[in-house]
Amino acid sequence: MTITITAFERSPDRGRGLARDMRVRWALEEAGQPYEVRLVSFEAMKQSAHLARQPFGQIPTYEGDLTLFESGAIVLHIAERHGVLLPADAIGRARAIAWMFAALNTVEPPIFDHSLARILERDQPWYEQRLHALEGSIRKRLGSLAARLGDADWLDGAFSAGDLLMVTVLLRLKSTTILDDYPSLAAYVARAEARPAYQRAFAAQLAVFQAASAG
Amino acid sequence: MTITITAFERSPDRGRGLARDMRVRWALEEAGQPYEVRLVSFEAMKQSAHLARQPFGQIPTYEGDLTLFESGAIVLHIAERHGVLLPADAIGRARAIAWMFAALNTVEPPIFDHSLARILERDQPWYEQRLHALEGSIRKRLGSLAARLGDADWLDGAFSAGDLLMVTVLLRLKSTTILDDYPSLAAYVARAEARPAYQRAFAAQLAVFQAASAG
Repeated sequence: MTITITAFERSPDRGRGLARDMRVRWALEEAGQPYEVRLVSFEAMKQSAHLARQPFGQIPTYEGDLTLFESGAIVLHIAERHGVLLPADAIGRARAIAWMFAALNTVEPPIFDHSLARILERDQPWYEQRLHALEGSIRKRLGSLAARLGDADWLDGAFSAGDLLMVTVLLRLKSTTILDDYPSLAAYVARAEARPAYQRAFAAQLAVFQAASAG
Repeated sequence: MTITITAFERSPDRGRGLARDMRVRWALEEAGQPYEVRLVSFEAMKQSAHLARQPFGQIPTYEGDLTLFESGAIVLHIAERHGVLLPADAIGRARAIAWMFAALNTVEPPIFDHSLARILERDQPWYEQRLHALEGSIRKRLGSLAARLGDADWLDGAFSAGDLLMVTVLLRLKSTTILDDYPSLAAYVARAEARPAYQRAFAAQLAVFQAASAG
């Protein structure tokens, strides 16, 4: 059975690994699973063939043993199917899943809004004030996260799907200086980036961008 | 074993069922599980006893067979532990979980931002423009959701944890007229509100607000 995921034909992040297919690539690499990639244009993402797989016209999707959308759900499915990225015991598993939801529902929103504002609202008269407010929200979350992480390597025991998603969320801050004020979180991100599975996934998505740029 | 959840001592929504403990109450009612509620003040939410259970100082938390945070993770745990709100087959289960993530990571962010802007940014010079932009994002998501729902009762077969979370997200739009333009989604929300489990959960959280107001 071949696993096929979708990714941007031309990623808006220019191959910096911020598109959400990175999460799925990384999880598949952690699981040692080969996969194929179908690149989709922004036009194709709005067409019925893609919408049948992804109702909101986004990437990534997952096709293989089943068809699935939402990067968080796909990462959870890969983790469960291949017995990776989640503790074997029920309590540890539930706690790792809590970190998955925390990454996507509590930490990501202000970080994503901040990066979006830096693109879309740069010329607005309120830009500085809005950025300041969003940075405050981000710092509140990062302070809580750093306090919980303490001097541990990962959020709750071994590296989990919760860490994987949390790191992909924090990586979006790399184009700012905010993470400099949270050295333990910067080190947490660096530890994750050093994982061979991360590096393989990053190289694969960068190669897509470079090929598109050369073409 | 007693299940104890936390909720706001005084909910900012004045008992309209928008606080995130509602999701957990509703899931527990669907599962037929009794539970106790520990009310926490905004001060207590920032203190170490609560932060040990909820690193970001939010509600709800879940204590019982394990201690857990993040409403999405708690609902998933309740569904799995009690064999409710998820299809029995692996594919149906994964797809219901995809809708859980879609509710919290794709549909909720613009809706939550919109309700927050209506409270915090009303006096800002950019208010109208920002509200308009957020409403555009919300309508884009609602259009996709309505297209997928079609004339079905629920998003993917029987009522699931994905529907439960999606409805709690859409309920936040009730103080606007936006949902009027999506009659199939308004009917979807009304169908969910008619469930006896929803009504018991709603009554329970409203009673907390009314007791606090009378006290």
